[in-house]
Amino acid sequence: MKSAVKRIGVLTSGGDAPGMNAAIRSVVRASMHMGIECLGIRRGFNGLITGDITSMDFVQTSGLIGRGGTVLYTARSEEFKTDEGRKKAANTCKLFGLEGIVGIGGDGTYRGLLEFSNQEGVAVVGVPGTIDNDIACTEYTIGYDTACNTALEAIDRLKDTMQSHERCSVVEVMGRHAGHLALYVGVACGATAVLIPEKKIDFERDVVEPIRAARLAGRTHFMVIVAEGVGSSYDVAAKIKEYTGLDPRVTVLGHVQRGGSPSARDRMEATYMGYNAVELLAQGKTNRVVAMQKGAYVDYDINEALAMKKGIDERVYTVLRALIGAEDKLNI
Amino acid sequence: MKSAVKRIGVLTSGGDAPGMNAAIRSVVRASMHMGIECLGIRRGFNGLITGDITSMDFVQTSGLIGRGGTVLYTARSEEFKTDEGRKKAANTCKLFGLEGIVGIGGDGTYRGLLEFSNQEGVAVVGVPGTIDNDIACTEYTIGYDTACNTALEAIDRLKDTMQSHERCSVVEVMGRHAGHLALYVGVACGATAVLIPEKKIDFERDVVEPIRAARLAGRTHFMVIVAEGVGSSYDVAAKIKEYTGLDPRVTVLGHVQRGGSPSARDRMEATYMGYNAVELLAQGKTNRVVAMQKGAYVDYDINEALAMKKGIDERVYTVLRALIGAEDKLNI
Amino acid sequence: MKSAVKRIGVLTSGGDAPGMNAAIRSVVRASMHMGIECLGIRRGFNGLITGDITSMDFVQTSGLIGRGGTVLYTARSEEFKTDEGRKKAANTCKLFGLEGIVGIGGDGTYRGLLEFSNQEGVAVVGVPGTIDNDIACTEYTIGYDTACNTALEAIDRLKDTMQSHERCSVVEVMGRHAGHLALYVGVACGATAVLIPEKKIDFERDVVEPIRAARLAGRTHFMVIVAEGVGSSYDVAAKIKEYTGLDPRVTVLGHVQRGGSPSARDRMEATYMGYNAVELLAQGKTNRVVAMQKGAYVDYDINEALAMKKGIDERVYTVLRALIGAEDKLNI
Amino acid sequence: MKSAVKRIGVLTSGGDAPGMNAAIRSVVRASMHMGIECLGIRRGFNGLITGDITSMDFVQTSGLIGRGGTVLYTARSEEFKTDEGRKKAANTCKLFGLEGIVGIGGDGTYRGLLEFSNQEGVAVVGVPGTIDNDIACTEYTIGYDTACNTALEAIDRLKDTMQSHERCSVVEVMGRHAGHLALYVGVACGATAVLIPEKKIDFERDVVEPIRAARLAGRTHFMVIVAEGVGSSYDVAAKIKEYTGLDPRVTVLGHVQRGGSPSARDRMEATYMGYNAVELLAQGKTNRVVAMQKGAYVDYDINEALAMKKGIDERVYTVLRALIGAEDKLNI
Repeated sequence: MKSAVKRIGVLTSGGDAPGMNAAIRSVVRASMHMGIECLGIRRGFNGLITGDITSMDFVQTSGLIGRGGTVLYTARSEEFKTDEGRKKAANTCKLFGLEGIVGIGGDGTYRGLLEFSNQEGVAVVGVPGTIDNDIACTEYTIGYDTACNTALEAIDRLKDTMQSHERCSVVEVMGRHAGHLALYVGVACGATAVLIPEKKIDFERDVVEPIRAARLAGRTHFMVIVAEGVGSSYDVAAKIKEYTGLDPRVTVLGHVQRGGSPSARDRMEATYMGYNAVELLAQGKTNRVVAMQKGAYVDYDINEALAMKKGIDERVYTVLRALIGAEDKLNI
Repeated sequence: MKSAVKRIGVLTSGGDAPGMNAAIRSVVRASMHMGIECLGIRRGFNGLITGDITSMDFVQTSGLIGRGGTVLYTARSEEFKTDEGRKKAANTCKLFGLEGIVGIGGDGTYRGLLEFSNQEGVAVVGVPGTIDNDIACTEYTIGYDTACNTALEAIDRLKDTMQSHERCSVVEVMGRHAGHLALYVGVACGATAVLIPEKKIDFERDVVEPIRAARLAGRTHFMVIVAEGVGSSYDVAAKIKEYTGLDPRVTVLGHVQRGGSPSARDRMEATYMGYNAVELLAQGKTNRVVAMQKGAYVDYDINEALAMKKGIDERVYTVLRALIGAEDKLNI
Repeated sequence: MKSAVKRIGVLTSGGDAPGMNAAIRSVVRASMHMGIECLGIRRGFNGLITGDITSMDFVQTSGLIGRGGTVLYTARSEEFKTDEGRKKAANTCKLFGLEGIVGIGGDGTYRGLLEFSNQEGVAVVGVPGTIDNDIACTEYTIGYDTACNTALEAIDRLKDTMQSHERCSVVEVMGRHAGHLALYVGVACGATAVLIPEKKIDFERDVVEPIRAARLAGRTHFMVIVAEGVGSSYDVAAKIKEYTGLDPRVTVLGHVQRGGSPSARDRMEATYMGYNAVELLAQGKTNRVVAMQKGAYVDYDINEALAMKKGIDERVYTVLRALIGAEDKLNI
Repeated sequence: MKSAVKRIGVLTSGGDAPGMNAAIRSVVRASMHMGIECLGIRRGFNGLITGDITSMDFVQTSGLIGRGGTVLYTARSEEFKTDEGRKKAANTCKLFGLEGIVGIGGDGTYRGLLEFSNQEGVAVVGVPGTIDNDIACTEYTIGYDTACNTALEAIDRLKDTMQSHERCSVVEVMGRHAGHLALYVGVACGATAVLIPEKKIDFERDVVEPIRAARLAGRTHFMVIVAEGVGSSYDVAAKIKEYTGLDPRVTVLGHVQRGGSPSARDRMEATYMGYNAVELLAQGKTNRVVAMQKGAYVDYDINEALAMKKGIDERVYTVLRALIGAEDKLNI
C-alpha cells in the first residue's frame, strides 16, 4: 500500500493519561512500518503554533510503552482556539512538511483537530486518551483501566485501616462530569454506596439505607465512593455523620490517579488505536477518530463522534445496589 | 419476581484464577437479593460427592472481592466423571436441598455440569474462570486481566536487568493450548518476538529476523515471549544462541501468574457474571453458561458453547509484527 | 526454660500500622513455643475493660503475616486513663487468668501499660508499632517502611503527571509531630524541598531557592514534600505561587499510608519484636519495651524509654540539601 | 572544603541491583556539590579500558533515583584482571583526567578497584551494590530490600494458588553462596521451611518435621524456600514427595528479583552511600569501601573489608524455627 501522506506529527493534549506514551510509540512505529515519517509535537497544540517539534525514531520509542505520563508533554492551548493561532500552526505544518496530525486526548482535542482540518486542510485523526472514559463515541479510552486500578489499590489500603478502626471512609475519585471511574471502582472495591453525577441522589435511599443494612448484617466499616463532580466529599461526610452517627474520614485521591506505568490493557488499547490512527491517515482519510464499539475497533467522523451521547451502564448500577442491599431480602 | 429455585450451591473447579472469590461473593449476594439461599461447595465436584459443604452469608463474603485464590478450594474430580460419582453428588443435592449449581471454571467444569444436569436433573449454570482466556464462547474469562498484569510486571522487572547487561531474555508464560496470554503480554511489554501454539513457527522469520532488525536499529536487549504450549523455552533459548550468538536467560513465570488480588476488571467481570448466573437459575433456566460477546454479557447453551471455536486475534498479531519490524521500511 | 507466666494477652492500641498483624502472629506463636497460652484482646485497652477477648491459635494466625490492619481492631480508650477503668481491666485479667500483656502501639500505649502495671501488678511489655517512627527509644517502629513505600509509590505516580504538565506538586504526608516519614520519602523521591516540624522553616532558603536552582539547571517539574505537622499544605502551595509564579497542585495522601500488606522489612521487625516481647514476659520481666538501637534488638524500662528524646537524622537533611542544590556549585 | 580530586568517574560492575541508578545519581550530584566533575564509565571496568565514557549532569540524573537497572550498564571484565588491561584503563584515566573512581558492586568489584589503585595509583572507593547482601564488611547492600520485597510479592501470589489447591510450593530464590535473601524472605512469608547454604541440612528435621507439625495443626498448604546455592529445588521437591506424599510445585524466581524500581530503603541507602563515597575521595582518601555497621554509615580499607567474614543472623533462624514449630509444645 502506498501511503497518502509522507510526514505526520503526533501530539498529546488536555489532561494526561497512562498509556499516552504507548500510543505515541505505536503511532511512530506504525508510521515507520507504512513508510511515513512521524515527528513529535510538544506541549499539545502549543507546539504546533511555536514549532516545538522533535524527531522520533525506533530507539527513542524503545521502553516508552511502559512509562506513565507523556514524553511529548501536554497542555491546553487558548491560542489554538483562535483563527490566528491555527494559521500559525498551519505555517508550522508547511515548514515541517506535516500532512497529517494524530492528536491523543479528549473531546476538546477532537474539536481543535476538526477546526484545524476544516480551516487549514491538514488531515487529522483523534485517539481517545483520558482516565475518565467520558468520550461518547467509544466504550474505552486509554488510561481508564490504569486509573481504575490505581484508585482501587489506594482504596484497598484504606479498607485495612478503616477495618482496624471500624470506621466509615469517604473517597473522592476523579470525574468532574462523568461517574464511570467512580462506579467501576465502587463495584470493584465492594463499596457500600457510590455517588455519581449521572444519578440524582436521594441521600436516605442511596447512602443511609445501605449503611444501615450493612450494619444490621454485622458489618463495622463502610466505604463510600464519590465522583468529583458530585460536589464536596466533605459535605457528604458531614451528612453521613448527621444521619448515622458515624464519623467518616475523607480521602481525595487526586492526581495520583493520572500517573503510573500503564496496565496491560491500556498498553494494548493504546498500541491498537495508535496503529489504526496512522492507517487512516495512510489511506488518505481525515476528520476521523478511532474508537471501540461492541468490543471492536472502529472509527467515526469527528462531527458524528462529538454529537454522540454516553450514559453510565445502568445494569452495573443495578447489580451494585443489589449486592449491597442483599441482606434486605433474607436477613431482615 | 419469584425465583424458580430456593436453594443453590456454588463451586470452583479446575485451575484457580484471580477473581474466583469475587465471583463467589457475587453469586452468594445475588442469591440473597433474589430470595435464594446459597451454600458453598468445597473442593470442586469432590465436595458435591462427599458433602463438603459450608454456609455462606453477607459477612462471610465481606472483603472477599479483593482476595486471590478461592476460599472454596478447587480440585479436579475423577470420580465425578463416573455415573456413580454423579449419583452420589445427586444424593448430596437432595440431602442439602440444592436445586441448582453455579460452577466457576473452564470447559472441563462445563462438561461436568452438563452431564450432571442431563443425568440427575439438577439445574446448572457455568461461569468462565481461567487465566488462559481459552474458553471458546466468551471473549473474556475471569482471571485473565490479572494474570496479564502479573506477567507484565515480572517482565518489566526483567527488562531492567536485561537492559543493564544488554542481554536477551526468554520468558515462558502460561498457556498450554492457547497463546492469548502470551500474545497480549507480548504486545504490552514490547516484545521482540512472541511464540504461540496457534501459529506455525518459522524460527528465522519469527525470531531471528526481528532480533536482527532491532539490533540494526540500535537495540541491545531483547525480550522473547513463549507460550507454555509451544514447547521448551530452554530449546528456544538454545536456538537463539545458535542463530544470533546472544546468550539468552530463561525465566519460567509459572504459578505466580495464577495468584494475587484481582484487578479492577476481573472484579467487575466476576461480579457481573456471578450475578447473571444466579439470575438464570432464578428464571428456571439450566445448562447455560454466561459469557461476553461483542463487549456485552450474554449466555449460551452449554452444548452450543462447547462446540464453538476461538482463535487468536489475527489483527493483534499483525500489529505486533508491524511495530517490531518497523525499522525495516525506513532505516535500512 | 520454664516460663514465668502461663497465660498472656496481646492487644493493638492507638493508630494502626502495617505489620501489626505480623506482630500479633509472632506473639501468639512465640507464646505457644514457650508453653504460654496467648489470648487476643480486641479494640485496645477497651477490650481489657469490657472482656472483649478471643482465643488465638496456629491456624487462626496462619496467613496473618501478610495482612494489613489489625485483626484485633484498635481504639483509643479514655476509660483506661482512669483508675476505675484500669480496675475493671484488672478484673478481666483475673477472670481470664492473664498474667501478662503485650501492647503494640506508640508512646500512649506504653503509658497505659505502665500505669496498669504499676497500679494492678500485671506484667506488661510494649512493642513499637506506628508508621511515624516517632518513638524515642527505638530506631525503628513497625509500619514505617511500608508507609514510606506507599507514600513513595503515590509520589512516583504524581511525578509522571507533574512531568507531563510541567507543574509543581505539593504532597502532604503523615506526621503530626515528627518529620521522619517526610524526610525519608523526600530523599527517596528526589524532592526539591522537604518541610518538617523539627526544622524552623526559612521559606526563601528552603523552598524558593531550591526551586530556582533546579529551574536554572533545566528542570520543569518540582516536588515539595510537607509533613502534616508543618501546617496547611495549601498555604505552602499558595506561598510557592506567590514567590515563583508556579501554580502547584496539592495532594494530601492521608490514611492510605496506614494500610496495605506489610513490606518484607515490617514483617521481619514485627516477627522479631513480637518474639522478644514474649521472651521478656517468660523471663519474668515487666515494664519493658522492645526496641532497636544501633541496628540491634534491645529492650528498655518503659519509664526510661518515655524519657528519651529523638531527633531527625541531621546528616540525611544535609545530604538531601546537598543533592538538591548540587547545581549551585558547578552550573552557575 | 577544597576537594583533593577535580574529576572522577563512576561505574557499576558485576550483577546489577535495584538502587544502582540512585547511587549513580547521588555520586554525580554529590560531586557537583563538592566542586568535582563526575563522568559516567559504561559497562563496568570494560568502559575504563575502552574509554566508553559519558558526561553526567543534573538533568541527566533527574528521575534516575526511581529507575531499576543501571543506565551505565554493567559487565564483568576478564581483561581488567590482567596487568595489561589495567594499564589501558590507567591510560583512559590520564586521557580523561580521572583522579578517582567510585565503583558500585560486590567483592569482585572491590578487588578490581584495589589492584587498579595499587598498580596505577588512581584513588578508588567501593560502594556495596548487590541483591544478595553477601558483602562481609557491611550489614546492608544496595538492592537487597527491593529484591526481598519482589520475591515476597511473588511468593504471596503463589500462596493464593497453593491455598486454593492445598498444595506444597518449593520456591528457589537467588543466593549462590549466601542465604540472607532466602532467610529474610522465608521469615517474611511465613515459610514452613527455609534451606540455605550456611546451614547443614538435616532433611527430616528441617523440612519433614515442620511440614508434619503444620499439617497436624490443621494447615493444608506449605511453602518451602530454597536458596539457589543449596542445590536443585527440583530435587528438594522430589524428596518432599518421597517423605510426605505431597506433590510440590517448583518455582524458580530467577532474574525477576534483580529488576524493578528500588524501594524507599534502597533509594535512601544508595543516596547516602553514594554521597559518602564522593566525600572520601574529596578528602583525599583511597582504597576505601563505604558500609553500614550497627546501623550507622562507616568506611573500611578495602583489604580489611575483603578479609572480613559474615554469617547469617542465627537469632533469625532460631525465631523462624520457633514460630514454625510452635504447635509442638501446646497442640500435640
